[in-house]
Amino acid sequence: MATPIVTRLPERRRLGSPVDAATRLFLVFGDPIGQLRSAVAWSARLARRGVNAMFLPAHADSEHLAAAVEGAKRLRNLGGLMFTVPHMVAAVAHADQLTDRARRVGAIDLLRREADGRWTGDNVHGAGFVAGLRAAGIRLDGVAAYVHGCSGLGQSIAWSLAAAPISALTVFDVHAARAARLARAIERQCALAVQTGSPDWARCGLAVNASPLGSRRADPLPFDVGRLARGAVVADMVMQPMSTPLLRAAERRGLEAHHGRHTMDFALPLAAAFYGLPDHVNGNGA
Amino acid sequence: MATPIVTRLPERRRLGSPVDAATRLFLVFGDPIGQLRSAVAWSARLARRGVNAMFLPAHADSEHLAAAVEGAKRLRNLGGLMFTVPHMVAAVAHADQLTDRARRVGAIDLLRREADGRWTGDNVHGAGFVAGLRAAGIRLDGVAAYVHGCSGLGQSIAWSLAAAPISALTVFDVHAARAARLARAIERQCALAVQTGSPDWARCGLAVNASPLGSRRADPLPFDVGRLARGAVVADMVMQPMSTPLLRAAERRGLEAHHGRHTMDFALPLAAAFYGLPDHVNGNGA
Repeated sequence: MATPIVTRLPERRRLGSPVDAATRLFLVFGDPIGQLRSAVAWSARLARRGVNAMFLPAHADSEHLAAAVEGAKRLRNLGGLMFTVPHMVAAVAHADQLTDRARRVGAIDLLRREADGRWTGDNVHGAGFVAGLRAAGIRLDGVAAYVHGCSGLGQSIAWSLAAAPISALTVFDVHAARAARLARAIERQCALAVQTGSPDWARCGLAVNASPLGSRRADPLPFDVGRLARGAVVADMVMQPMSTPLLRAAERRGLEAHHGRHTMDFALPLAAAFYGLPDHVNGNGA
Repeated sequence: MATPIVTRLPERRRLGSPVDAATRLFLVFGDPIGQLRSAVAWSARLARRGVNAMFLPAHADSEHLAAAVEGAKRLRNLGGLMFTVPHMVAAVAHADQLTDRARRVGAIDLLRREADGRWTGDNVHGAGFVAGLRAAGIRLDGVAAYVHGCSGLGQSIAWSLAAAPISALTVFDVHAARAARLARAIERQCALAVQTGSPDWARCGLAVNASPLGSRRADPLPFDVGRLARGAVVADMVMQPMSTPLLRAAERRGLEAHHGRHTMDFALPLAAAFYGLPDHVNGNGA
């Protein structure tokens, strides 16, 4: 387990500063970092519950990620590292060991130092996504799902949906070989036929955008929600803007739109558990 | 000049978090980091003035400093780096260029990224020390001073006292060669005779402890204040505990005791200027 990091805050309250020498720093690596608001706002919720920890955005581009991560690992007051787009696959190189779910996905979003100095990587995006769907009352059993984009994020989601379990899965990526590799890997592990390419839209009950399309104004829609049947759910992992063009199109068609922030709301408590933060610290009310 | 880092804080106030994607992070490297309270508390003062910056303690031991610093330099949301004991000399290796005062001392406490990507190191501890003495009404002209300890901190103080100017200077270090090198370097540059070893205590008007002695309970006093004449000032750069055994001994003898925090109070505005933070942000009221 990670070192316990709960301390009371008399000194830093006296100083009027949110940080003191006992504060455990958590760096959240991304590029860009504008979408990290959930993780960063989590600091404030933790502080209100007496946890002396701070989550900080760490803006590193892919070229400099390795040096930045290895440098951060040298800080003794580091609590842990988190990774978001586009670093989740590259971050694996900085772990000495992986949880089972992280090894399956081949991408990590969490990294912690063990008592023996080794670094363990985990991946909770997929589990957070599924927990967010369930909390929103969305049933998964018997559902045919479609995941658009097979980056570390998309892979994490596809694996968690497969384990939910669902009844059918189609995965797509602009790099067809990447989608095919993912489909074969899931089929080997789970009792589920996984297809690649376009799904049977009329039977698709859950369509997930796990690509970055929608984060920039000029992006095309990742897929056409007009082909989905009534009752289908459209989920978008793009968190900035909050209401993406895809989700707005889904709402216009009367489909249920599931925001990316639900995933973060449920991934953060999973991260808390991984880091040994008190499990009553729950991001779910924000 | 460093990139301007003043932004207003509507979003992070709304989120209740002191950090957002626009916050410039400043890492303060030390080992230990318990004594960094002034620099860290500075964050809160900056925030109250609308400066979106946060100073964070970065606990790195000497073995890991280089990797930690080079990693931090890769972060695009980094505002700058600061260095305290024992890293001020080692930190020079991470600067591409030095200010004149930093080059003279051979130690840096500040490091900033220029627009061209080069890193500039500066040293404001000595200037902060002298400014703190002056603000406390302590006159330096005609004074014979003694500096005990010739680490990066002691060297910075000795150079600034020599430039004040004072009338005589004695420097001491447990490594006699280090004190001798410092004395010769100051003599070459300044019109001042510098001695090494013990001063003429009866004529010494200012005795400064720039060694770590006093930070641990079992430490002996760095020097005997009983040999100083009435009217002498005793300054201690040890900041933790606030009232050191040396300063208490000085007060018992009726001498003026000058705390280490005065140096930080005046070094921080110099750091603000170096980083391009607004110069009305002044640590001097805390």
